[in-house]
Amino acid sequence: MPEVLIILGSKSDAEIGQKALDLLKRFGIEAKMLVASAHRTPDRVRELVCQSKAEVFIAIAGLSAALPGAVASFTSRPVIGVPVSGKLGLDAILSIVQMPPGIPVACVGLDRGDNAALLAISILSLSDKQLAQKLAAYRQEMADKVENDSNEVQA
Amino acid sequence: MPEVLIILGSKSDAEIGQKALDLLKRFGIEAKMLVASAHRTPDRVRELVCQSKAEVFIAIAGLSAALPGAVASFTSRPVIGVPVSGKLGLDAILSIVQMPPGIPVACVGLDRGDNAALLAISILSLSDKQLAQKLAAYRQEMADKVENDSNEVQA
Amino acid sequence: MPEVLIILGSKSDAEIGQKALDLLKRFGIEAKMLVASAHRTPDRVRELVCQSKAEVFIAIAGLSAALPGAVASFTSRPVIGVPVSGKLGLDAILSIVQMPPGIPVACVGLDRGDNAALLAISILSLSDKQLAQKLAAYRQEMADKVENDSNEVQA
Amino acid sequence: MPEVLIILGSKSDAEIGQKALDLLKRFGIEAKMLVASAHRTPDRVRELVCQSKAEVFIAIAGLSAALPGAVASFTSRPVIGVPVSGKLGLDAILSIVQMPPGIPVACVGLDRGDNAALLAISILSLSDKQLAQKLAAYRQEMADKVENDSNEVQA
Amino acid sequence: MPEVLIILGSKSDAEIGQKALDLLKRFGIEAKMLVASAHRTPDRVRELVCQSKAEVFIAIAGLSAALPGAVASFTSRPVIGVPVSGKLGLDAILSIVQMPPGIPVACVGLDRGDNAALLAISILSLSDKQLAQKLAAYRQEMADKVENDSNEVQA
Amino acid sequence: MPEVLIILGSKSDAEIGQKALDLLKRFGIEAKMLVASAHRTPDRVRELVCQSKAEVFIAIAGLSAALPGAVASFTSRPVIGVPVSGKLGLDAILSIVQMPPGIPVACVGLDRGDNAALLAISILSLSDKQLAQKLAAYRQEMADKVENDSNEVQA
Amino acid sequence: MPEVLIILGSKSDAEIGQKALDLLKRFGIEAKMLVASAHRTPDRVRELVCQSKAEVFIAIAGLSAALPGAVASFTSRPVIGVPVSGKLGLDAILSIVQMPPGIPVACVGLDRGDNAALLAISILSLSDKQLAQKLAAYRQEMADKVENDSNEVQA
Amino acid sequence: MPEVLIILGSKSDAEIGQKALDLLKRFGIEAKMLVASAHRTPDRVRELVCQSKAEVFIAIAGLSAALPGAVASFTSRPVIGVPVSGKLGLDAILSIVQMPPGIPVACVGLDRGDNAALLAISILSLSDKQLAQKLAAYRQEMADKVENDSNEVQA
Repeated sequence: MPEVLIILGSKSDAEIGQKALDLLKRFGIEAKMLVASAHRTPDRVRELVCQSKAEVFIAIAGLSAALPGAVASFTSRPVIGVPVSGKLGLDAILSIVQMPPGIPVACVGLDRGDNAALLAISILSLSDKQLAQKLAAYRQEMADKVENDSNEVQA
Repeated sequence: MPEVLIILGSKSDAEIGQKALDLLKRFGIEAKMLVASAHRTPDRVRELVCQSKAEVFIAIAGLSAALPGAVASFTSRPVIGVPVSGKLGLDAILSIVQMPPGIPVACVGLDRGDNAALLAISILSLSDKQLAQKLAAYRQEMADKVENDSNEVQA
Repeated sequence: MPEVLIILGSKSDAEIGQKALDLLKRFGIEAKMLVASAHRTPDRVRELVCQSKAEVFIAIAGLSAALPGAVASFTSRPVIGVPVSGKLGLDAILSIVQMPPGIPVACVGLDRGDNAALLAISILSLSDKQLAQKLAAYRQEMADKVENDSNEVQA
Repeated sequence: MPEVLIILGSKSDAEIGQKALDLLKRFGIEAKMLVASAHRTPDRVRELVCQSKAEVFIAIAGLSAALPGAVASFTSRPVIGVPVSGKLGLDAILSIVQMPPGIPVACVGLDRGDNAALLAISILSLSDKQLAQKLAAYRQEMADKVENDSNEVQA
Repeated sequence: MPEVLIILGSKSDAEIGQKALDLLKRFGIEAKMLVASAHRTPDRVRELVCQSKAEVFIAIAGLSAALPGAVASFTSRPVIGVPVSGKLGLDAILSIVQMPPGIPVACVGLDRGDNAALLAISILSLSDKQLAQKLAAYRQEMADKVENDSNEVQA
Repeated sequence: MPEVLIILGSKSDAEIGQKALDLLKRFGIEAKMLVASAHRTPDRVRELVCQSKAEVFIAIAGLSAALPGAVASFTSRPVIGVPVSGKLGLDAILSIVQMPPGIPVACVGLDRGDNAALLAISILSLSDKQLAQKLAAYRQEMADKVENDSNEVQA
Repeated sequence: MPEVLIILGSKSDAEIGQKALDLLKRFGIEAKMLVASAHRTPDRVRELVCQSKAEVFIAIAGLSAALPGAVASFTSRPVIGVPVSGKLGLDAILSIVQMPPGIPVACVGLDRGDNAALLAISILSLSDKQLAQKLAAYRQEMADKVENDSNEVQA
Repeated sequence: MPEVLIILGSKSDAEIGQKALDLLKRFGIEAKMLVASAHRTPDRVRELVCQSKAEVFIAIAGLSAALPGAVASFTSRPVIGVPVSGKLGLDAILSIVQMPPGIPVACVGLDRGDNAALLAISILSLSDKQLAQKLAAYRQEMADKVENDSNEVQA
């Protein structure tokens, strides 16, 4: 049974979702990626969320980007929203970040499927020490890569 | 039974809704104003919309303003969205106007409960000649008022 | 005689208008697409709108995008405005959505000729049960496609 | 007969128009201020512009601010547009400045009735040497005031 | 020992932090509120975060709002960022939401101390069934309040 | 001796300036195009403007776009500013349009060298009936082209 | 003879300039505050800058905010620009920050006369060890104040 | 030992950093370019800044662009921030320019590595007359180039 459920508002967001999926799998987390539109299939969103045993939800959407908020309306488990870039830069960010009082969504950066996965991992690490260690190691790896990059840039 | 259903995302939007309600009543249209939050009460939104016999819906919301889109996800009757102003000007406008392909919302201007009502009246006038005449008269009145205003400004 | 009149502010908006036209025709609605500029041919806009028997108008324009408002100034029938994207994202959206009190325009999303057509169909469905059924079927089709997309994404 | 015609999109813009009127009168230019809405009274705009002998038009409007463009659509004489501030800062500016090819409007700053008048005076000065001298004197006065302000600030 | 650490970028953000604190305490969560500036006291931020046993961090900041990202740079536990409104609406939102790949921050809405607390509660609920029940009850309360509000609005 | 002086802030703006130049020449107006940077060559701007006999100035610039205002600071003849598009859409528009009280610039749309020329022609037409007739003819041509475009679109 | 020259674009910016002046004086730096408008008094700006012996310039302006760039066009000494807030938040920021290649301005935050002074002090400290020590002490004081604020917030 | 330290937030910013480096070297200034991420390697930023003898720092970053502020938090020597363009234009600009009171960053334009170098040179010129002369010569060269460009444009 998946621990993280990734829901795409549209098939066109699959590339961003895949980044999240790959990272979650690399950390050994069970994850599943589905498409469900808040506007075209509201009942499907409701059903998927209410039946899911996922501990964390990642919802990815562009434009008016109602999906993360719709997911959050059906669960009190953590929902991470990923705004998708398009002709306007701000629409999806503002739609996801400006949630009303009472129903939070954790918004990450534009097209940041990777950070959505890392935030989910961070949340799941609270009750899983091994995962926390893997995450710390991953961050150390990133830090090391910065030093390598620095050497290349200077060369 | 109401012909137009006005749904507020929050009680704090009541003043804008009231403008719509007053105008609808002035035109002899049955209308009802309720509160239902897309995020706090998604099932209530679903229920209200699916059980409603309203021909036109007016949904009024600020911030991430998912309500108009949520209403539109449950009905193929026309849905008019009114963005409500707040600390940012653009969030509610972009959340309402940038609907994805397939599920349109008719977005009117910031805080324009009045125009939402007039758009609903315009839609209902297509099959109601008397209403169309009242609307034409109302617009003539507005035009006359402009001339009066002009005289005052010159005085 | 057409039921929906599509007016383009410029020939360069034809692709967006064509999406609306195709969708209207698929639903068996008579529609016609013309070019008339609010700024270059104000009298032509006036004449086309005043002589038209169309029940719904779709006006498509970019930049300062005065066309939808100009159409609305000559008719009290419903006018749907489609903002066209360009170097700035916001100009056409704000020009169309921020109509003054008294003269509403129903603004849909950036470049959303398709949603303009679907909103027109939704309005015309109020007095045409067959059309309403077709629209319901179309929406079911979209919902089914989401499920198919979901299966593809998971494969 | 007035040399400059000031048209307000709404009586609420009168204060900004008055600044333009006062400045024009101070320079001995005949000017008249009227109200005419591009959306509520399109025919009135047409009539006022087409019958006017004004050499320069100043059109003042907020929100979707179609008035300056509407005036420009009926005359090839210079049209100066003044965007009026409101809940959003950008709507009126973008609506006025982003005119399509072929029909220019000379946009000045937000709420800058004064600069609209000075631009009109600058235009009329091209064929009126005395006016040009008055304008040069006015600008010298402004420059002198800057020096006085500087002394006050240092005191 | 506190389970949630609230860090304010400036004493002037205390009101927003207090909303988070009150809500956390209402749910029986140990929480502590401190001031530490990413720019004025970077070492203090480092020290507070590295020595803290908190499971979730809430960082509240306006303007360039580096604090949430700075906190996240020192821990792989979840960090929730609250942008604070000011003269510009967008600066703090974009500074918090647009984190680079690898170091996520969970951004909530402008001035939404309440939602930051609820997101923290949601995260902590994953391993605390009682807390999850309290959160579900709180959400039910909110939903009930919407119905009450609706009755008042109709009265 | 030129009647219109076109000043480019940078050689890279030459394409936009050329559109203005071509249109001015088509109307038989003497025009000259130069490069002078408000920031790199402030004295050159001063000298060019103060020595010029041009009746109208067109200043074309991107980014912080100080050139139109700099030109206007040295002359009380009409100055038309053309904002040039770049990575941000709004910088040049706001820099040109938001002139302080006392020194107006006539701002036209983004990259609209053509409209700058037409505005200059409109200004010069006030004292040149033949030019006014040519401008009226040009506008009629544009209107005719709209009708032709409409026929093509329908075909 | 002053080491820092503060130039205000308008007397209305004096309060922001005063903050810079006070801070500079507190650090024992000679400073002088004048008014000179890039648009109303371009020659005065030129003269003040060219005759000044100041090592650092602080230019404070709102709206199209050309002053900092104008100052920088006449000197290759460091110029710090302070954007002043108004009806729009972004105009002055973008006008100051988006300088073209070759002529930098050091832009600080909206209305941040204090930070302009501190940046000037930081620059002057490079060749004045005592000043550098005072600045370090000032920063320590700020850091201490954060701890005090933290204690108050917790009390 | 380097006089200017250029720090990139990411290897992908190297092209912008290289422009700064080349210009600094052309002026005979010792400079070094490194990568250090405020978020991925906060301790590395601290260490590099605290151990550096550089007189001026240039920090280059996109997105939430915390690097320039992070550098400034560890030194009271001048820090120049270069915002890097991306999907949104405004995020990096606002993150860098809107620093809180007490810790200034000198923000230059989007992607303006060149202007960052010139600002650093301008600062270093205050205590190095030869450098000041080279800078004056460079600016004269730029001015001459404008005249050449002008001749080419006219040809």
